[in-house]
Amino acid sequence: MLESTVAAIRPLDETAMAAARELQGRLTKPAGSLGALEPLSVRLAGLAGACPPPLPEPATVAIFAGDHGVHAQGVTPWPQEVTAQMIGNFLAGGAVVNAFARQAGASVTVVDVGVATPLLVDPAADATDPAGPRLVAATVRPGTRDMTVTAALTRDEARAAVETGIRIAGELVDAGAGILLTGDMGIGNTTPAAALVAAFTGADPAEVTGRGTGVNDGTYARKVGVVRAALDRHAPDPADPLGVLAAVGGLEHAALTGLVLGAAARRVPVLLDGVIAVSAALAAAAFAPDAVGAMVAGHRSAEPGATAALRHLGLDPLIDLGLRLGEGTGALLALPVVTGAVRVLHEVATFDSAGVAEK
Amino acid sequence: MLESTVAAIRPLDETAMAAARELQGRLTKPAGSLGALEPLSVRLAGLAGACPPPLPEPATVAIFAGDHGVHAQGVTPWPQEVTAQMIGNFLAGGAVVNAFARQAGASVTVVDVGVATPLLVDPAADATDPAGPRLVAATVRPGTRDMTVTAALTRDEARAAVETGIRIAGELVDAGAGILLTGDMGIGNTTPAAALVAAFTGADPAEVTGRGTGVNDGTYARKVGVVRAALDRHAPDPADPLGVLAAVGGLEHAALTGLVLGAAARRVPVLLDGVIAVSAALAAAAFAPDAVGAMVAGHRSAEPGATAALRHLGLDPLIDLGLRLGEGTGALLALPVVTGAVRVLHEVATFDSAGVAEK
Repeated sequence: MLESTVAAIRPLDETAMAAARELQGRLTKPAGSLGALEPLSVRLAGLAGACPPPLPEPATVAIFAGDHGVHAQGVTPWPQEVTAQMIGNFLAGGAVVNAFARQAGASVTVVDVGVATPLLVDPAADATDPAGPRLVAATVRPGTRDMTVTAALTRDEARAAVETGIRIAGELVDAGAGILLTGDMGIGNTTPAAALVAAFTGADPAEVTGRGTGVNDGTYARKVGVVRAALDRHAPDPADPLGVLAAVGGLEHAALTGLVLGAAARRVPVLLDGVIAVSAALAAAAFAPDAVGAMVAGHRSAEPGATAALRHLGLDPLIDLGLRLGEGTGALLALPVVTGAVRVLHEVATFDSAGVAEK
Repeated sequence: MLESTVAAIRPLDETAMAAARELQGRLTKPAGSLGALEPLSVRLAGLAGACPPPLPEPATVAIFAGDHGVHAQGVTPWPQEVTAQMIGNFLAGGAVVNAFARQAGASVTVVDVGVATPLLVDPAADATDPAGPRLVAATVRPGTRDMTVTAALTRDEARAAVETGIRIAGELVDAGAGILLTGDMGIGNTTPAAALVAAFTGADPAEVTGRGTGVNDGTYARKVGVVRAALDRHAPDPADPLGVLAAVGGLEHAALTGLVLGAAARRVPVLLDGVIAVSAALAAAAFAPDAVGAMVAGHRSAEPGATAALRHLGLDPLIDLGLRLGEGTGALLALPVVTGAVRVLHEVATFDSAGVAEK
């Protein structure tokens, strides 16, 4: 499934992009006055192969959750049980991602690809409200191994997680989603994200490791050392993205790589959240460079690795407000900007049709 | 009306702000992980005097339209008739501001405070759809005078425009608006905006004059010279905001000053659009420094004067995407961020209520 998905990812449609550029020039506004929204609308036309491209509706946030063996190295002050507890919070609708999703009219799908501790969720609870958050049980293994000791995952496990993401993307698109938003939950997951960013961009671990949910100086120094030790141990080859994900990745990172690939293959835009998402997007771009055409950078996370990854991908984020929460919150804040960029091509009058003089 | 409005503007409520800070610390997210949204939510609690503050709903964009005598100096390639034509476009729902307002669920009120050429709008047309854009005829005079020759407005005219903005703010709040968004239309209006920014911040005209809707090098040089000539002629006193607005302002700038003051007096947030809005906000802050507490900077316009004004006001914009369209478009793009910031205080579970462990 991975190979066929990668093979299905194609470049943007130049004809549709040219049509979108031409249409932007006829709308009742000065040329270029919508700034970054104009090239975004052009790119989404190229992805859809149509001008105007469809409005990115409905939207779904796919939150992939996993735990991390590297938690044992003391890279975060949060107990590992919080991953499972926050899944309960997502399914009860009480997290920030739920509040933002309700506001944006987006649905929430939580995918357990590798939570280590028992979920405290009534399996029947999520069936009561068809519009409410949904849980998909897809555990590859209960958390990764400690990457400072051994590879986090076997290649087969990494592939299984990537293919879970591809499968979820396909199911969501089949169900009508017009855009996929990336979400994540996993205590400790900014540590493998930093390792992935360093592996794919070649940056030094000290440049791309951040304070995650807020670690003190001692924990931060240990975290940088852990990332460096893992990269030194495995020396992952950036030309082998499955190998990189297996060596220093996380199950949610690998699944998000698959979500991005699946969206790109189906030519549906994927709106990236923070550092977990963009580290996974680096792996997706290593599998299929044309997958970048389907990516929209929702926001610039406060994590330094996010900026390094976005630069490597050539993506400019839509929102830059110092968020560092994850869950999909930054992507959801950016969703109206994406929708607005496309809506302009659908709804704005031309100089000719509105009887407005040009300069 | 101006004096009583200014007198009614009070500082933020410290008790409500302390309650909002305390609540942010108990919600199921790492402290500070929502970045700029957290202090924004605290400030809006202080404005409302309540924690949580009300959701900023419903939203209304008030588009003030006027023309400019300085158009005769060749500061823009657009004919003056476009101001009136674009009002027709707004009322027909065909402009970008309409598309963004529909998406955001905001209503649109167009206020003619001084359009120079005849409106081509059927006066009955806007009555057919009660939810559609509305036109308010409130002409102070048909365009300002050329500020390089004489004062753009008399003090009485400037006051009448400010008081029109105050009146519109009151009517919109009385009708239930939970937030006011600033909009503007006026061919040539970035020239008086640059003059206002220079007058209030003390910046050199060359630093705060931009290319507006897109002028070439020759027109740009002429525009800087026009701003400099107007300031040299009138030497406006920044401690006398009515005098500054009269000397080098525009009718829509003066009315927006009033809208900001009216919103602040009613303790309703006002979401600022681009350089026209923030130049008017400088005048509002000169009338009443506490009015800044009601201001939210929607976006950073590509115009350099906008950045200078935001710095002077101490405001960080929510969106920074190179927009330079005006109309209220940048404010509308930022509206979901403001709503989301407040929604968190209403809807997100606490660690205690959700059974999530803390670090």
